[in-house]
Amino acid sequence: MPDILHKVRVNHASKDATYKALTTLDGLSGWWTTDTTGDSRAGGVVKFRFGDGGFDMEVLEADPGGRLRWLVVDGPQEWIGTTIDWALKEDENGTVVLFKHQDWKEPVEFMHHCSTKWAMFLMSLKSLLETGEGAPWPGDVKVDGAH
Amino acid sequence: MPDILHKVRVNHASKDATYKALTTLDGLSGWWTTDTTGDSRAGGVVKFRFGDGGFDMEVLEADPGGRLRWLVVDGPQEWIGTTIDWALKEDENGTVVLFKHQDWKEPVEFMHHCSTKWAMFLMSLKSLLETGEGAPWPGDVKVDGAH
Repeated sequence: MPDILHKVRVNHASKDATYKALTTLDGLSGWWTTDTTGDSRAGGVVKFRFGDGGFDMEVLEADPGGRLRWLVVDGPQEWIGTTIDWALKEDENGTVVLFKHQDWKEPVEFMHHCSTKWAMFLMSLKSLLETGEGAPWPGDVKVDGAH
Repeated sequence: MPDILHKVRVNHASKDATYKALTTLDGLSGWWTTDTTGDSRAGGVVKFRFGDGGFDMEVLEADPGGRLRWLVVDGPQEWIGTTIDWALKEDENGTVVLFKHQDWKEPVEFMHHCSTKWAMFLMSLKSLLETGEGAPWPGDVKVDGAH
């Protein structure tokens, strides 16, 4: 089954700081969407909204050692049942973020779109941690009209 | 076999203008790397260089109707034998670019990196066509240190 893969390095940021940006409502609001609510602990469900739609993610695993996994429990039909896997590795230059959005059923055009958008949001995460300012929705980088 | 997928919309650009940015040395130099040489016609080989390395692409297909395919004939070992497939669709708002980098053998960490970099270069292509200015190497958006 096709996956979306990405990787960014967050310069001069610790794994702990990066993990916090992925596992707190405050952190998530700073790079993905300002409309983030819910319970971001393991077993909880986080609700990400983008105006007219969004995603509900169940936190399957949240390991401060550097692993985070989400299961999409509500959202666009193509996303439901897919998983999002984050792996963090710290070295002397910062923290590497390895990203996988797995278990898409088909490589539909929407998957192409989501792959490019994930890259924009990972750059937003990188920017948030490096400069204090990300580009979460609604101020996100648009790749297709208003999206 | 895993693929890298992306999609961008180039606002207010025709399919012809987009096709030209993908099939002329001048166009390719404006969004991917300023060091682009070779023969960009079908059957030719284009050499893309990024300082200490790069890719040689054989142009398998170049159809002004909106399809372009490259075969990687030299470059990093993971890239050799992979293909890059571009499909262009024009509508009233511009041109949609559907991108696939296919036939990777394994979803290695380098593939994660290349997926994120392709997104940056597709945004560079979009910017070149929308504003007249892209961000080709060496002025490309870095996602991991100097890369």
